[in-house]
Amino acid sequence: MKFSKIPEATITRLSNYSRNLEELLSENINVISSEKLATRCGVNSAQIRKDLAYFGEFGVRGVGYYVQNLLFEIKRILGLNKEWNLGLVGIGNLGSALIAHENFLRQGYHFVAAFDNDPVKIGKKLPNGVKVENIDNLEEVKKRENIEIGVVSTSAGTAQAIVNRLIKADIRAIINFAPVQIKVPPGFRVENVDFTVKLDSLAYHLTSEED
Amino acid sequence: MKFSKIPEATITRLSNYSRNLEELLSENINVISSEKLATRCGVNSAQIRKDLAYFGEFGVRGVGYYVQNLLFEIKRILGLNKEWNLGLVGIGNLGSALIAHENFLRQGYHFVAAFDNDPVKIGKKLPNGVKVENIDNLEEVKKRENIEIGVVSTSAGTAQAIVNRLIKADIRAIINFAPVQIKVPPGFRVENVDFTVKLDSLAYHLTSEED
Repeated sequence: MKFSKIPEATITRLSNYSRNLEELLSENINVISSEKLATRCGVNSAQIRKDLAYFGEFGVRGVGYYVQNLLFEIKRILGLNKEWNLGLVGIGNLGSALIAHENFLRQGYHFVAAFDNDPVKIGKKLPNGVKVENIDNLEEVKKRENIEIGVVSTSAGTAQAIVNRLIKADIRAIINFAPVQIKVPPGFRVENVDFTVKLDSLAYHLTSEED
Repeated sequence: MKFSKIPEATITRLSNYSRNLEELLSENINVISSEKLATRCGVNSAQIRKDLAYFGEFGVRGVGYYVQNLLFEIKRILGLNKEWNLGLVGIGNLGSALIAHENFLRQGYHFVAAFDNDPVKIGKKLPNGVKVENIDNLEEVKKRENIEIGVVSTSAGTAQAIVNRLIKADIRAIINFAPVQIKVPPGFRVENVDFTVKLDSLAYHLTSEED
């Protein structure tokens, strides 16, 4: 099955729906109207229906959505009915913070390997039990630990070279936290994380409310 | 002037357009067709026109967009024709990484203050020259440094209590990096950063391409 026509924005909204459905479950809410779910997710109910319609029919007329069912289906769609193995490159402040951040594990993302080129860091055990490996051992560790997604938290100047090595090791999906736009060849995917985009939204609202 | 009907997704896309226009400028590209700009931004050209139409008419028929003009206008719309003062709370690994991250300064966001409650950290000077203050001095430092946006990088368990203090100090916009959904009262805004949303997109593509 291929879903090649699905807009990226739909995928991002599915993530948002799944986060909110998880919260509902933890609040012991088992059924929710499409309007209430929409309000909670910050969209309108037509948007939710349209996003879900790419994948099937999930609502129940006159009822809304069964929370657990819809969460299960969205996780299946997103590929989150399995756990994913992450390999982190760059064990500075940001890398250390990422590996300790509770959200990854909660959402099914496991840091199974960590790499650096600093002899002081190589061989050290991180709080999650993973030992820092020499980046030169990337291909070997990738196979041993079955790394599926690369996480780059190096400096901007190093990031593209590291990504090129991840690609050479056939790690097909990469998330980049270095402040530089990374390019990958066809068949590979990169998501560049830019913390400042959310600040722009705050700046916009602070500005337009002051006027 | 109020733009209360502007969708949040439009604001996020304007950020994306401005990042791409900055890159074009740095590549000495001064004029770009709406189609080329759209491809570069990962949207279609109708979307760009629709987003910009909320604010005015910026394209030139038969030409496209003048890069510098459009960048200037988008920055004005987003409120980025001024610099914004950030106050960081929580000087752990993540906080230290955020304060050192080059993107903030590049996009006009200045960390002017930093807070913690750890006596070992209070009084220390950070690499950007800012001294770590006792969180108990929040209101005083907020006024002195004119903090406009609060940045929360505490643990999940502490984040809401810290946000409540930021609100009490009348900091009206907050970006939260702790792995917990933060709520704020009307008149305040919070953006919760969840690193794992971008991973969900990678997981989706890894899954759907395998099928």
